[in-house]
Parts: sequence; structure tokens; C-alpha cells
Amino acid sequence: MTTLCSMTTYDSSAVSAYAVPSSGAPLERTTITRRPVGDHDVLIEIKFSGICHSDIHQAREGWGESIFPMVPGHEIAGIVTEVGPGVTKFAVGDRAGVGCMIDSCRECANCLAGNEQFCLDRSVGTYNDLDKKGEPTLGGYASHIVVDEAFTLRIPDGLPLDTAAPLLCAGITLYSPLAGQGTGPGKKVAVVGLGGLGHMGVKLAHAMGAEVTVLSQSLRKRDDGLRLGADHFYATSDPATFEELAGTFDLIVSTVSAPLPLDDYIGLLRAGGALVNVGAPEAPVSLNLLSLINGNKGLIGSNIGGIRQTQEMLDFCAEHGIGAEIELIGADRINEAYERVLTSDVRYRFVIDAATV
Amino acid sequence: MTTLCSMTTYDSSAVSAYAVPSSGAPLERTTITRRPVGDHDVLIEIKFSGICHSDIHQAREGWGESIFPMVPGHEIAGIVTEVGPGVTKFAVGDRAGVGCMIDSCRECANCLAGNEQFCLDRSVGTYNDLDKKGEPTLGGYASHIVVDEAFTLRIPDGLPLDTAAPLLCAGITLYSPLAGQGTGPGKKVAVVGLGGLGHMGVKLAHAMGAEVTVLSQSLRKRDDGLRLGADHFYATSDPATFEELAGTFDLIVSTVSAPLPLDDYIGLLRAGGALVNVGAPEAPVSLNLLSLINGNKGLIGSNIGGIRQTQEMLDFCAEHGIGAEIELIGADRINEAYERVLTSDVRYRFVIDAATV
Repeated sequence: MTTLCSMTTYDSSAVSAYAVPSSGAPLERTTITRRPVGDHDVLIEIKFSGICHSDIHQAREGWGESIFPMVPGHEIAGIVTEVGPGVTKFAVGDRAGVGCMIDSCRECANCLAGNEQFCLDRSVGTYNDLDKKGEPTLGGYASHIVVDEAFTLRIPDGLPLDTAAPLLCAGITLYSPLAGQGTGPGKKVAVVGLGGLGHMGVKLAHAMGAEVTVLSQSLRKRDDGLRLGADHFYATSDPATFEELAGTFDLIVSTVSAPLPLDDYIGLLRAGGALVNVGAPEAPVSLNLLSLINGNKGLIGSNIGGIRQTQEMLDFCAEHGIGAEIELIGADRINEAYERVLTSDVRYRFVIDAATV
Repeated sequence: MTTLCSMTTYDSSAVSAYAVPSSGAPLERTTITRRPVGDHDVLIEIKFSGICHSDIHQAREGWGESIFPMVPGHEIAGIVTEVGPGVTKFAVGDRAGVGCMIDSCRECANCLAGNEQFCLDRSVGTYNDLDKKGEPTLGGYASHIVVDEAFTLRIPDGLPLDTAAPLLCAGITLYSPLAGQGTGPGKKVAVVGLGGLGHMGVKLAHAMGAEVTVLSQSLRKRDDGLRLGADHFYATSDPATFEELAGTFDLIVSTVSAPLPLDDYIGLLRAGGALVNVGAPEAPVSLNLLSLINGNKGLIGSNIGGIRQTQEMLDFCAEHGIGAEIELIGADRINEAYERVLTSDVRYRFVIDAATV
């Protein structure tokens, strides 16, 4: 049924990977089995795989029960080495990416609207999930992955694969609210937090033509922020920031998961402005609804985007020469990288060189 | 400077009114002085004046310190009886309305965008405020009012003045979020609370072509709701409502000021939907941001609209034959009406016959 075109040796029952054997345990090198390449599947030889904070949450069951052994990774960039006979959009040799999801029902209103991430049946996560046949999904800390072409992204030639990998989660997570809220010339956009997500927000909002402000706890990353495209940089630990910037922004995108004093941030919005949260504290937050009513303001949540918008984001990034700022590591340093992510000691995304997996 | 064209006797220093003499005291008949009709002013002989819940809040200082004696009333409909020499948009005999504000700076970005209610200097409230000269403003429970034509609305011929009066606050308060969120055919809209605000929401959303659901504490007002234009009516006291309607609505407009379990209501939204609050509890509310993130949902505040949108609303209501459901009372029953508003014993708006003031 499938056509093997790759020059590399590939054994679907012995795919190299790094896995978390049990909750909270360190990652270990192992081998996993990938499904046969089906009619509509592509086999991707993974070149680079980003480390997302949510990998750590799930490896340590911070968000609830996980499936072990777990191969994390949903920021995947590589090369197509085999395609199923029904594949029409990819050919061997194509540059391809995989993000946070690999399947959905494809029939519901949300899927048809291009929002597979909100599939009314369920979208299937790239790892720590069960596929439609009930088999655990295994992610990108591996040498290869088999994915339906409908959930495979095309990585444009202009984008290096290493800095493109984090676009598949961090990139789309910021692109989606920025594009959805009409970011562009004449708009004032603030990005709260300059980490893996926030630094993508600065680059994207700047490329969209907005006037960009970083709101960071301290001024420690100021030079970086300005270099990445921010026009202004303020410390939120300084109360004067909230006075000086009151009523300023059309859009604030918060990338932090620490609980924010929301009324204070809403006070930074102009009439009609929106505070979009892509990072979420685990505990409920509190706010005064009058903060929103006085100015027709919105508190909005935003998840990843759908497949169509993710492709749009990649094309936008290629057009504007945007990739993540990364620290490339060998797979033997994943556990160390996890610890450093937890202390925000990374500028701004760890990416695993999959050749070392 | 002014041209007196009215056939009625008008003495600007002896205008009949009903006032609250001090915090929480009953309203009493009195006389007040209106300013001379200035270059750009119109003198309106008030025919009808609606009673808004916020009149009671302010008369009883529920929202903080008020200015006494207070003449409440910001749902005013009447006839122009005199115009200043600089007036261009109104002539004697015209049908005119006044809503919640009577002035603003007219120069700031928000005023220029037609959002005078969010004037960056300040908008001047129709009562319980100080005008630009520092004089207390006095509202619509009176026989006449003098207002700058720029803050005077044209009431189209098709609208009876009595049922039009409440449109100036309740009407625009619901029209603004409904229109702003794209209400129309194919959209599912829920209105929380069927009171003075909510019943306008049902009529307006129905006229805009949406499928309308009322979410009310009980089924007590079900027949009314369906008669006013609702397609469905559910009791929020029944937990099954939240199961049955999960993921249903594009837009929910909450008109209640009681604190709602926001996460439950957000669960009723489809992906991309919005919960708009026009009623606000005085205490902070709590919600889980993940409720918003899982579905790109919004919690949005909405105030009254600007003058341009208020005129648009009146024209829309005339086109669709929409007015408030009212109980017309003589001015001697205002105090009784206040008590009945507090127990929700009105279907759905008290309107004072200004001939009895």
C-alpha cells in the first residue's frame, strides 16, 4: 500500500525516541513503534523538535493524569521520507511540520470552519492522547513520526527547520490572537512576559506593523525585547508602569501563567480593547466586571489555531523571515533543559537536534 | 439670542420636576431652574421619562456619593419647543430624545470615533453629574430639559414617544453589544434575565434575525418571553439547562447584576463565542481562564452606545416597530414604582407621564 522512497533505513518497530517512563521521571532514550504509513499518511524524518513548557506540565502530570510511557514534543520540523498512495499534498523530500494535534473528526462545524483544535468530537493531541483507534499518541522527541497529511504543515523554503520548529506551537499560539484581533499598523499591542511564547508575540506583532510594548516583571530582558522588535519595554514590578500606560493598548496578550491582577491590566486598555490570555493560571482568577464595562473591553481566551491558520502563520513567518530564538541541544540534555525552562533560563526556546535522539 | 417658538408657557426658573432631596429620601415634587437656551441648545418639552434601575441606585447612593437634590431620569422623550440660533439639526415641533449623557469633550479619539460615553476627558451624565461649567445636571423627571443638539436624538415618527423613552438607555444598552457582536440570521443569542434590559434584548435580537433564547431564573415569564420574540426559554435554576445547552450560543448577553457562575455560562458558548455583561455585580467575580482558552471565548463588558449608534438604534427600532413594554404611571407613583422595580414587579419598564410632573 505504501511507497518507500527514503534513502535512510527506517524500521517502524524500532524508532529512536526519548520517553518519560512514568510520572515525573527523567526522560530516557528508548525505541518506539510507529504505525504503518497509511493511505493518507506521511512519514517524516524529524530534524528538530522544540521543548514546550506544556511538555513538562504533562510529563509531571501538572494538568492531570497522563499516559506513560510518554514521548513529548509537538513542535516538530523535518523532511518527508515516505508518503501513502492517497497523499496529494506532500512528496518525498518536502519540508514538513507537525504541531499540537494530529487528528480530529473533520466533519463537525468547528472542523469545517478550520478550527480542528475545537473539534466537537475531539481533536487528537500529538502526544499524551489516544488516537482514533485507541492507541497512545507519541510525540516529536523521536527520529520519525507518521501523520495524516491533513494535519501536516508545509514549512516554506525560506524558514530554517530548527528555528521553525517552535512556530508549530509557540508561533501559532501567538499568531492566532494577534491576527484574530486585527493587529496591524496603527495598533498598539502589549505582550506580557518575554519567554518562549512572548518572544514570538513580539516578533509577530512587530512584523504585522503594530507598535509593540513588552510588559515584563523586570527590565532584565530589555535589550533582547528591543532587538526582537519591541518599541517599548516596561517593568510590571514598577507601579508607575500602570499609571503611565493607562488606556494605551488596543490589545494585550498575556503569555504568563502566573495569576495577574487583571483589573490593573484591563486598565491599560483603550476603549474597545482586549486582554487575551494564552497562558492560564491553574487557579480561578478574580476581576471586577465594571473594569470591562467601562470601555467595552474584553477578556478573551486563545488556544492554538487550526491547521489552515497554522499554515498561514508559517507562510507569514517565511515572508517576514521570522523564526524562534533557540538554543539547540542534543537529546542527552533534555532533562537539564526541563529544569532550565522551569527557572525561565532559556532565550527563548530549547530545540532538540533530532539527529542525536 | 434664542427664538421662542413654543405655544406653551415656559419659565426656565420654575420648571416642574420630581427630585430626591437627600440620599435615600422619597422623591418630591419641586421646581428647578434650567439654563437659558444657548446657541446650540434645544429646549425639549418632556412627554415621557423612563425609570431605570440605575436611577434608584444613584438616588440611594448604591454606587457611591451622589449630588442632591437629584432629579433622576435619562430615558427622555419629548417635543422640541425652542431652538438656539446655532441649531441646525432640530426645529420646533421635532420629536426628540435624551439618553444617559448630555456632553463630552468632542475632541478626543473616543469622541471622534463616536464613543462619547468613553470621552477621555469625561462625558457628562444627564443627571447626578456636573456640567462643564460645574453646575449639577438635572434629569428627565421634569417638564422640560435644555440639551445641546449634539447630544439630542431624533425620535423617528413611527415610534410612539412613551414606548420610545426607555430605548434611550435600556434600548441602546442592549443594541450596542448585539450589533457590535454581529447578531443576525444564523446566530444563536441568549439573553440572561428578562427585565427592563433583557426584554429589549429579546426584541432587538429577534428583529436582527437571530435565534433567541431567554435564560431566566424560572419559567415564570416564559409566555412573555416567547411573545416578545424568544424562540426558546430556559430556567437557569434547573441544572439540566446547562447540560442541554452546552456549546450552543454565539453570544450571551447578561443583563443581571447578581453574580453569575461565569464558568457555567461560558460553557454554553460555542467556540469563538462571547459572554457580554451589561449588568455588573458590585463585588469582583471569579472565573477559570481555561474556560475562555478552551474555545477562544470572550468575557466582554458593554456600556451604552455613543450618540451615532443611539440614533442608529432608534432608526432600527422605528423600522422594526420596536418599543419597550411599559407601564405608564403618573409622577405621584414614582416612589411606589421604585419599590416595585426593586422586587422586579414590572413588565417591563415604568414610564412617567411627564404631564403629571
